Amino acid sequence: MNLFNHDKQLKSMADAIRFLTADAIEKSKSGHPGMPLGMADVATVLFTKFIKLNPEAPRWFDRDRFVLSAGHGSMLIYSLLYLLGYKDISIDDIRNFRQLGAKTAGHPEYGHLAGIDMTTGPLGQGISSAVGMALAERILNARFGDELCSHYTYVINGDGCLMEGISEEAISLAGHLGLNKLIVLWDNNNITIDGTVDKANSTDQIMRFRAVGWNTLDVDGHDYSQIEKAISQAQESDKPTLISCRTKIGFGAPTKCGTSKCHGSPLGAEEVAAMRKALQWNYEPFEVPEDILQAWRNAGRRGMDAYKVWEQKAQTAGQPFADYIANKLPANWTEALTELKRKAVAEKTKVATRKASQMCLEAIVPHVPQIVGGSADLAASNLTLVDGMKTIVKGDYDGNNIMYGIREHAMGAVMNGLSLHGGVIPYGGTFFVFSDYMRPAMRLAALMGIRAIYVLTHDSIGVGEDGPTHQPVEHLASYRSMPNILTFRPCDVVETAEAWQLAIESEHTPSILALSRQGLPLLRTSSEILESARGGYIIRGDKDNRQATLIATGSEVSLAVSARDRLKEEGIEVAVVSMPCTELFDRQPLDYQEEILGAAPRIAIEAASKFGWEKYVGLDGDIIGMDGFGASGPAEQLYEHFGITVEEIVDSVKNLLKK
Amino acid sequence: MNLFNHDKQLKSMADAIRFLTADAIEKSKSGHPGMPLGMADVATVLFTKFIKLNPEAPRWFDRDRFVLSAGHGSMLIYSLLYLLGYKDISIDDIRNFRQLGAKTAGHPEYGHLAGIDMTTGPLGQGISSAVGMALAERILNARFGDELCSHYTYVINGDGCLMEGISEEAISLAGHLGLNKLIVLWDNNNITIDGTVDKANSTDQIMRFRAVGWNTLDVDGHDYSQIEKAISQAQESDKPTLISCRTKIGFGAPTKCGTSKCHGSPLGAEEVAAMRKALQWNYEPFEVPEDILQAWRNAGRRGMDAYKVWEQKAQTAGQPFADYIANKLPANWTEALTELKRKAVAEKTKVATRKASQMCLEAIVPHVPQIVGGSADLAASNLTLVDGMKTIVKGDYDGNNIMYGIREHAMGAVMNGLSLHGGVIPYGGTFFVFSDYMRPAMRLAALMGIRAIYVLTHDSIGVGEDGPTHQPVEHLASYRSMPNILTFRPCDVVETAEAWQLAIESEHTPSILALSRQGLPLLRTSSEILESARGGYIIRGDKDNRQATLIATGSEVSLAVSARDRLKEEGIEVAVVSMPCTELFDRQPLDYQEEILGAAPRIAIEAASKFGWEKYVGLDGDIIGMDGFGASGPAEQLYEHFGITVEEIVDSVKNLLKK
Repeated sequence: MNLFNHDKQLKSMADAIRFLTADAIEKSKSGHPGMPLGMADVATVLFTKFIKLNPEAPRWFDRDRFVLSAGHGSMLIYSLLYLLGYKDISIDDIRNFRQLGAKTAGHPEYGHLAGIDMTTGPLGQGISSAVGMALAERILNARFGDELCSHYTYVINGDGCLMEGISEEAISLAGHLGLNKLIVLWDNNNITIDGTVDKANSTDQIMRFRAVGWNTLDVDGHDYSQIEKAISQAQESDKPTLISCRTKIGFGAPTKCGTSKCHGSPLGAEEVAAMRKALQWNYEPFEVPEDILQAWRNAGRRGMDAYKVWEQKAQTAGQPFADYIANKLPANWTEALTELKRKAVAEKTKVATRKASQMCLEAIVPHVPQIVGGSADLAASNLTLVDGMKTIVKGDYDGNNIMYGIREHAMGAVMNGLSLHGGVIPYGGTFFVFSDYMRPAMRLAALMGIRAIYVLTHDSIGVGEDGPTHQPVEHLASYRSMPNILTFRPCDVVETAEAWQLAIESEHTPSILALSRQGLPLLRTSSEILESARGGYIIRGDKDNRQATLIATGSEVSLAVSARDRLKEEGIEVAVVSMPCTELFDRQPLDYQEEILGAAPRIAIEAASKFGWEKYVGLDGDIIGMDGFGASGPAEQLYEHFGITVEEIVDSVKNLLKK
Repeated sequence: MNLFNHDKQLKSMADAIRFLTADAIEKSKSGHPGMPLGMADVATVLFTKFIKLNPEAPRWFDRDRFVLSAGHGSMLIYSLLYLLGYKDISIDDIRNFRQLGAKTAGHPEYGHLAGIDMTTGPLGQGISSAVGMALAERILNARFGDELCSHYTYVINGDGCLMEGISEEAISLAGHLGLNKLIVLWDNNNITIDGTVDKANSTDQIMRFRAVGWNTLDVDGHDYSQIEKAISQAQESDKPTLISCRTKIGFGAPTKCGTSKCHGSPLGAEEVAAMRKALQWNYEPFEVPEDILQAWRNAGRRGMDAYKVWEQKAQTAGQPFADYIANKLPANWTEALTELKRKAVAEKTKVATRKASQMCLEAIVPHVPQIVGGSADLAASNLTLVDGMKTIVKGDYDGNNIMYGIREHAMGAVMNGLSLHGGVIPYGGTFFVFSDYMRPAMRLAALMGIRAIYVLTHDSIGVGEDGPTHQPVEHLASYRSMPNILTFRPCDVVETAEAWQLAIESEHTPSILALSRQGLPLLRTSSEILESARGGYIIRGDKDNRQATLIATGSEVSLAVSARDRLKEEGIEVAVVSMPCTELFDRQPLDYQEEILGAAPRIAIEAASKFGWEKYVGLDGDIIGMDGFGASGPAEQLYEHFGITVEEIVDSVKNLLKK
């Protein structure tokens, strides 16, 4: 084929994307045509000449990863997956774009359709999680070598992703770590929703990326040979690469292209008809001519040989690698953790739960090689680092500690990428209050149903002198209201170990460990039952003989236990429920919940916003907690100041009993 | 004074900061000495030679603003304020550093001590809000001229602030808008908590700032003449300026300086004693020798003449300017809003509440000149822009619309800066679900107790086809659990107008307006009473004759009203409570709350996480809401799919009545 014909074929293949996109959006009366039309040429080159994939094995471990960071352009990836021959998507799915229950959701959803490597839509998340994928690839490459793990991570994103602050955190981390197998294709179309980019931004993106150690290239995004040359060059770079692809948004739409009008709404029947004429596309909606479809399907089979070679290697690679791929935990991985719990009970170990968490990591990390941890520049406070861990640095990825820097948001997103890639189980630490900075990434983890473990220390006014900017108040409630995330707030070493175990075993739900800064007594008298698995349980007292029930979490469980002791002296019997994870408690059978909470008056105690505790204490119970923000001062004084004390609990019980 | 003596005096003045810092932290056994010691020289030059202030009028409108973005170095600003002669802080306050109730809180707190222009501590917020302050200055300068409003905004920040993504959003906006009176002094000490910066970051900060249109300078942060020259140059720049101040963290501490050891803990008695020797500081803790104190006090009086000139001008500037300074709303500013409500009732105007919000803005903006609004690249969706508004651009700040770009986090922080500066009332729009991106800034607004209005549209599964990444679920609950923020979710045009009025009048509490994408019927039959002011009220039915109470917000109030109509046909009397703002409802007298909620069974209806509604319906009531994330599909189908329908409400009432 000569160059002209070659380009002509690529053009037809790209136009297939364009018309699937335009017609699907027309039919659903909703969607974003601009980006897929503009980036169809770039995507065609990428997917027909570079990306390593196998439509028959969408989860092939060593496939190249592809993240459509500009998730609103979802028709681009749906078109690609259909054209390449993924069995999970048919032309009817394309027809059903954005309909309830369709695989072709408004934005690409991980787990909803094979071939989608990540849920995207919230801007900046994709490019940032791609950094995590590229990092996972390097980590596993260091462990298993080029034959088992060696692939690229490609991203398509627009100006939106680059304007979001998270992208700066992520690209500066990628540059620092020298993740040279990460290739970002920037849809540089100079258009955002509100108009031309220059109305709101004057950033020299090339200079910006160079400032954080990236290789940068610039191409006409509608010139196939330029695109091909640039991706080839990017593959050879010793740095991550940004390719600025100068494109026309809505390419092909005669009157709307190049304007924000084609960004987020259907083009309209008239415009689509005119586009058919302009691009000489004489086919019905959802019709892809056989020769073009075959060309795409051939492209889909490009990776078959590589896949077979890899499969062979993987089969002879032995159990460790198989376990990595299957996300399988080593047998007996909890043994040291069990020993830690027993010892803690025997010795009544009194430590802060952040310290308990570190003791857990000492018992886990050597036995679970998939674990990769880190902290956003607070390792010495979050206690996320344990002896024997090795820090990952540029050029040497054979480690398991990531120094995330002061980049909470990117940490959350990179953890998502690590988890999505597979083969690693990520944890990451910061102060609980600053989890707000990574909340959008945490939400995405919950929505995707992936494992990620957030080690969030300094979990209350127990922070003390650092004051209200550093004291979480509303955070527990705010995560309890978020679907599919487990919020653990353990009360001692045993519960901390239980939380770690449950979090690691929770393959489809991210977990928060909210941990104290201050020392806490050991309360558990036995560690034989994994009590935290049921979310809440009676830690003191008799369920059948109680005048009141105290429900507490974390650092306040010991206050409740002390209050119980004092009340007992006065002849008042109360039970104490430790509730380390309300979400797990809510999943228990109703009779278990009622058995634990009992019929006696209930009082909740938590050094946090009271919001939400009526769920357990009802309108007749009492809640001892915070009504406003914290304050700066020694922690014990703050507990007094805010009335979260043994005395308050005792008084509350007596008041309720008087009623 | 010759150069040598001049430098010697500055050195002594800087050392006064160093020892107040070291001794206060020693006494409180808690704090961050490294930054104040390292930046004492820079701060001394800035505060003795440049900053325009008057300790006797800490709120002087035309003072230079100073933001200690690295808020952990709070002893720097406390030392400065004391030394300069601010009456609100005494040497005893310094002695009481970080004690409960002390003005000298762990991190600087706005409103807690005169002279603190902003609460800082969460990294990246200070530098970003400073952009808002610098923008407010330009806006008001454009309106009132150089004599009334012309000042600089200075920031001191460290590497932490620069690594946070929010800083990229903010500096790119500042560069785009050409805010040349913003001067950032970067404490470039190459140390973060976990070690040297290069362990986690390799960014060329100078190149990075140049890429977003900044002027950049580089100085030895311990060389007084270099510092002075750089600040002078910065003042003359036509761009915002970053001055890289190369410093030694913990300067003066013989063994700990230059390491992360002096970042966040007391130096220790021995080290402080050695520091006294090294710096030849022969004074007791908290003792500042008279000549040095006098030199500082003289510096504090530098701005007195300028202040007097300004005061004169201000007194003759007339009422508009006086109102701006006093944050006073124009008389009768609500008139057009009142008219809008009456008309809506009369015409039964059926529109989405986002559209209603735009109608409100049309009625507000022309009458409240302080209003400055914008959107994070969603103006056409958030409907935040109205006719007659003028977009602020580089070089022409005489407008009232800010194109924030795709920078939600910076938008939140810039709004804080605008509000803190005074003279403007900021609002800003994005999709409700993406408010997560700016949550840390919103928390800070709530903590500082300042006015900011978040226009958050697309507030539920009513978003429809865009799917779960774009559908808020947990957001209402998450803000209701946050102290000091009002979450309005109006049900129609009248409630939307009420929410706008209450938000604008809420000078010490930020407000959220959660607004529907979809059209909603007009439900209010009268607009004469400002019902939303009480948070919740009976919108349909008879409080004394009801078998059940339906409590709903926003788009679900109309479902509740329809359910009531249907039940009435069947002879079942229910009342409908519209609850546009639970926080205001909670502030009402208990008997009002009980009167509204009634004794009959209660059902809450909200297309959002059920979390928290037990507070109003108790354990015996019912909650019709969401248990998980949303889905992609047409909005009406989603309401059906998730069971948030008139039928479900009717069934729920019948079930409760059967019990």
